Amino acid sequence: MVSNSVLLGFVLCIILYQQCFAYVPRMLHGRPKGGLVGTPGTKHHLLGETRPKLPPEQWFIQKLDHFNGADSRVWKQRYFVNETYYKPGGPIFIQIGGEGTADPIWMVEGSWIKYAREYNAYCAMLEHRFYGNSHPTDDMSVSNLQYLSSEQALADLAAFIVDLKNNVDPTAKVITFGGSYPGSLSAWFRLKYPHLVDGAVASSAPLLSEINFIEYLQVVTDSLRTYDGTDACNEAIRKATDSITSALKTAEGRVQIKQSFRLCDSIDPSNEKDIANLFSTLSGNFENVVQYNKDNRAFEGAQGTNITIDTLCGIMTDQTSSDPVQRYAKVNNLLLDVYKQPCQDYKYDKMIDTLRQTSWTSSASEGGRQWTYQTCTEFGWYQSSDDVRQPFGHSFPIDFWIEQCQDIFGNNFNITIISDAVKRSNTDYGALMIKISKVLFPNGSIDPWHAMGVLKDLNPDARAVYINGTAHCANMYPDSPDDPPQLVQARLEIFMQIGEWLQEKH
Amino acid sequence: MVSNSVLLGFVLCIILYQQCFAYVPRMLHGRPKGGLVGTPGTKHHLLGETRPKLPPEQWFIQKLDHFNGADSRVWKQRYFVNETYYKPGGPIFIQIGGEGTADPIWMVEGSWIKYAREYNAYCAMLEHRFYGNSHPTDDMSVSNLQYLSSEQALADLAAFIVDLKNNVDPTAKVITFGGSYPGSLSAWFRLKYPHLVDGAVASSAPLLSEINFIEYLQVVTDSLRTYDGTDACNEAIRKATDSITSALKTAEGRVQIKQSFRLCDSIDPSNEKDIANLFSTLSGNFENVVQYNKDNRAFEGAQGTNITIDTLCGIMTDQTSSDPVQRYAKVNNLLLDVYKQPCQDYKYDKMIDTLRQTSWTSSASEGGRQWTYQTCTEFGWYQSSDDVRQPFGHSFPIDFWIEQCQDIFGNNFNITIISDAVKRSNTDYGALMIKISKVLFPNGSIDPWHAMGVLKDLNPDARAVYINGTAHCANMYPDSPDDPPQLVQARLEIFMQIGEWLQEKH
Repeated sequence: MVSNSVLLGFVLCIILYQQCFAYVPRMLHGRPKGGLVGTPGTKHHLLGETRPKLPPEQWFIQKLDHFNGADSRVWKQRYFVNETYYKPGGPIFIQIGGEGTADPIWMVEGSWIKYAREYNAYCAMLEHRFYGNSHPTDDMSVSNLQYLSSEQALADLAAFIVDLKNNVDPTAKVITFGGSYPGSLSAWFRLKYPHLVDGAVASSAPLLSEINFIEYLQVVTDSLRTYDGTDACNEAIRKATDSITSALKTAEGRVQIKQSFRLCDSIDPSNEKDIANLFSTLSGNFENVVQYNKDNRAFEGAQGTNITIDTLCGIMTDQTSSDPVQRYAKVNNLLLDVYKQPCQDYKYDKMIDTLRQTSWTSSASEGGRQWTYQTCTEFGWYQSSDDVRQPFGHSFPIDFWIEQCQDIFGNNFNITIISDAVKRSNTDYGALMIKISKVLFPNGSIDPWHAMGVLKDLNPDARAVYINGTAHCANMYPDSPDDPPQLVQARLEIFMQIGEWLQEKH
Repeated sequence: MVSNSVLLGFVLCIILYQQCFAYVPRMLHGRPKGGLVGTPGTKHHLLGETRPKLPPEQWFIQKLDHFNGADSRVWKQRYFVNETYYKPGGPIFIQIGGEGTADPIWMVEGSWIKYAREYNAYCAMLEHRFYGNSHPTDDMSVSNLQYLSSEQALADLAAFIVDLKNNVDPTAKVITFGGSYPGSLSAWFRLKYPHLVDGAVASSAPLLSEINFIEYLQVVTDSLRTYDGTDACNEAIRKATDSITSALKTAEGRVQIKQSFRLCDSIDPSNEKDIANLFSTLSGNFENVVQYNKDNRAFEGAQGTNITIDTLCGIMTDQTSSDPVQRYAKVNNLLLDVYKQPCQDYKYDKMIDTLRQTSWTSSASEGGRQWTYQTCTEFGWYQSSDDVRQPFGHSFPIDFWIEQCQDIFGNNFNITIISDAVKRSNTDYGALMIKISKVLFPNGSIDPWHAMGVLKDLNPDARAVYINGTAHCANMYPDSPDDPPQLVQARLEIFMQIGEWLQEKH
């Protein structure tokens, strides 16, 4: 028998190994660590307050496989409720969990809470299966991940809402909220289970599944142009990209790049996937900031900084530094400092090794592995470099992303699987031809994800709320004195629409 | 090695065994052999004509599991098309296959074909997975039957329709048709895939899943009362039932019953399930005739007879025969003769043994095993004797039906599985609270299934077409000079509604 102390040491080694040597990019398939929606409520931090008292976690007994009546296995799904604002006769508001841990701060913060106060709503948030602490299976093996899908998540919601209505008020109206992928779920839930929901807000919801999401970097390019109305920022990035490409051809250049960008490892020029991942990582610096421009409250509050498009493009167009590569490196190193990363990871195999981990205690369990699985088996949405106009180079084409599915999950996950999956997803949900009512689709013009969303009214009762100048899910965060008027107006429009839904006959 | 001739003999033995010793009740869970909708077009037989030329079968490559993006297995699903009536710009009509073999006679007969002629429609019929010749798996083992569900069937339809539209006309409107369980599928498809269908006719569609379907025999009782407006027929059945119950208590009585009802096997009074199955079988004589009263064209044509409620109640109330048991036996033996059965099966174990067969060449593959599986894992709908007013005795209570799930499919299929399955089905589809538009719900007042259907308009664009005096799916059969005016009117109403759907903007 192994003694307990030896065993403990071994476990500690594993944990330390995972913490020190694991590597998931800060931005993976458009998903930052923690999930696609940031955390609200940082004004408490800004004011030096402690976080408000948050509701305790609760657990709902959920079926493992809703699409196999012979499978009786169940598991415990995490949820939170806030009854503070509820008055009898009021509605039930559901915040739909997504591709990250469900943070209970949302139970007391965010625009939906403001609406809940006004409409006397009972608030509940259901964590998405396979994310956070909602673990339907022993681990995240490929075999177990077969139960991770948006369809299963919608069925989870259905069972949860039926039970909640029975407990709270069987006649209560239900409004769902969600941002980004949960925004899609909010719309899709109204599509598939209209008898269980009376209105849905689908913020920044991508509805068109697509393997090669070239529009993503197109919008990033457009958004960077908003800095000064010119192509200066993009041109500087393009020059930096070109110079790096040249530099990588010589041993001296590679040493220089490693040093400038504080890379963790020396560059092997023969490793194409490392090179692809390096360029993709550098574009990720901009993707992350553009996607959450001026809205990432937690980021701003927690890190005591305010990195926006203006910050990055300010650096990129700063003529006091003559070399665009050095400016590009400055952006990179600023973000390394902010995120307290000692060096810049980019080694492909290291990333893949991390994402191949199946344990719930591994770094991959933060969400990177699960979200990648969903992109491979449902949505695609690979932010490739295949658009000709974007300035981040063309060394991370669609094949680079498709091969990741195979490298992480096995040879079975080839282009056929992904193509069929994306086709099935669009057949299932109708993509942008979705036939739906009582849904609002807020989107921000800065947000790269808006390219997959509903930007024009589908019909008088399925309207787009297109917000000029804001980023991903901006309308979901708490009010801020800095909010542009069109964002204030959008929140009001959503508020009024919910009021109408609540007035309508069932 | 076994010689080929020995092997052939062995196979022949198996086939003969299956034909001679297999036993599935004529009426199983409300489903007659062949499926819940009869075969139209028998006027050709009546007129001594041969069947018209029918379209050849075709095969569609279909995914095995639409709810697991990682599963790339495919199989061939059978379908038929008829382009005869199609003109460019016309719609696509889909006849949805159900719990039996898809008979191509439907491609040239039935009210939908009449509509297709008028609206220049392209007609297609997709056979339901696991029925007929549409075999997604090597056999019908419990493990393979996990892929048999209404949700998978709807996803089959979605993939099929997307492909068909691409081939015929991507802008074509689509109207779905279905009767009985496929009627439910027709409504549910419009619920779940509204972007793929512009109108749906859901004839005699049960929408409320329910374990203990006591309403079934209630409606049978009501329908038998239509014979003469009195309880005479039901009272005679009740007396017969009581007398049989008494007779079964003595050895002499059991011999008498065996003889009177031409039972295949002697009665073991200690075998409760045999007794339950005997009474259930005798009630099945009436269920079958009531469910298809005056509408079962194939039955009428093929068998050269016309057995209706009037026939059975005429026998039951015939005062020239003093003993109700003998009249009850006369009904039974008439049907044995019509169906050319040498004796009346009722042995529970024999039935279960048949339904446990998993081979596609077994008798069970006709549909009995698959449909029973769907009742155990989705719908319930057990026509128990638990209603106090019906006259067929109370010896086949709900437990008798629930235990069949375990006896056929294994101990796992207990009441918990069935309860959860029925709950999930109602959560999934909304039961009678279904939120839907552009659907018509025809139902017949005589048909026991109408108790699970939509009998009143849900909203102005989801209307009930309740037909007084007709049975299961009456509106789907070809016109007959004997059709009551309300049936003629119903077919016209459906025709006009389809016209409106085809006129509306997408």
